[in-house]
Amino acid sequence: MTITITAFEKSPDGGKGLARDTRVRWALEEVGQPYEVLPLPFPALKESTHLCRNPFGQIPTYEEGDLCLFESGAIVFHLAERHPGLLPEDANARSRAIMWMFAALNSVEPAILEIVTVKFVEGDKPWTKERMPLVFDRIRHRFRQLSPRLDAAEWLDGEFSAGDLLMVSVLLRSRPSGILDEFPNLAAYVARGEARPAYQRAFAAQLAQAMGKHAAV
Amino acid sequence: MTITITAFEKSPDGGKGLARDTRVRWALEEVGQPYEVLPLPFPALKESTHLCRNPFGQIPTYEEGDLCLFESGAIVFHLAERHPGLLPEDANARSRAIMWMFAALNSVEPAILEIVTVKFVEGDKPWTKERMPLVFDRIRHRFRQLSPRLDAAEWLDGEFSAGDLLMVSVLLRSRPSGILDEFPNLAAYVARGEARPAYQRAFAAQLAQAMGKHAAV
Repeated sequence: MTITITAFEKSPDGGKGLARDTRVRWALEEVGQPYEVLPLPFPALKESTHLCRNPFGQIPTYEEGDLCLFESGAIVFHLAERHPGLLPEDANARSRAIMWMFAALNSVEPAILEIVTVKFVEGDKPWTKERMPLVFDRIRHRFRQLSPRLDAAEWLDGEFSAGDLLMVSVLLRSRPSGILDEFPNLAAYVARGEARPAYQRAFAAQLAQAMGKHAAV
Repeated sequence: MTITITAFEKSPDGGKGLARDTRVRWALEEVGQPYEVLPLPFPALKESTHLCRNPFGQIPTYEEGDLCLFESGAIVFHLAERHPGLLPEDANARSRAIMWMFAALNSVEPAILEIVTVKFVEGDKPWTKERMPLVFDRIRHRFRQLSPRLDAAEWLDGEFSAGDLLMVSVLLRSRPSGILDEFPNLAAYVARGEARPAYQRAFAAQLAQAMGKHAAV
């Protein structure tokens, strides 16, 4: 069955790979599943056709036969559960890899996404300039907590897993702020993720789309 | 093997069941697993013993033999995967239930938790009064998107699942703000969750602890 994901027709980051379709593309590449992309212009996100896919009006979504999923974490997990390569076989190690998936999305990403709130959602407010350093400090707090984990380890827990895939994807979103580079071992961890051939293919595919080449990959 | 979870020794909500141990207690009750509770005073959250359990210094954690997990979503999933009652058997329905777990934690909870940031983390800032209505409106926006889903349905997707368990737990955190009651079908959905015997037992256990009765349940 053909897998079809949705992505922004024009990603707000202009091809930096920070939109959430990149992590799903990456997972698809890691497990070797071909996929097609349905690029959506912003107004289409609010139309009923897309709200049927995702009531929150966001990308990416994932369609495969009768199944339609939203939430990048759920899509990555769906793929990780069905194909080898993203979750360890040992039961406890598998539970820990899944734990890191939730940790990336719940304990790390919300702090980073606050930058978007300050900069864009509340960008016209008088408190923007004074609030941004507070938001940055909360990101640094999380990074300080995560950082020792990767002092001596290549990945979060043994082999590369879906937990690393999501954590690297989430950390990447802090790079434009400069905060990622304040933590050399986190920056190196992200670089290891980016160096994976599957990431390279996913990144190239979203960049090609951002450059106006919408062909299925 | 004994299951031990951590919880606040004194929950900041004084027993309203809004801390994240309640959702884990609820899942344990739904699947009929006995558990013990290790109550932690706030300073203990920053000590190395607990940071080994969870590098982000939060509760709840879950210990069972050699396995130690953090992230309430990951713990609920771990239980849901191992015991019947929280995930449907049909493969597609199961993937959708997991999708709602991620949706509760990633698309709904962060908006609600912003209340904590405005009220407590930045409570002394001059923008608090002007920012709160913006935060409330972003919660309402999410609730408006979720609400139609529960117009005619008892649960998010067929039978009660771990997705409902987390969504109800997350929505509950908006009740003190008054926003939940602005959406009668969401309030009714939460009430259906609260009416489940397993929730009742979980709520009573955390309340007993808040009242100073720390016995294992």
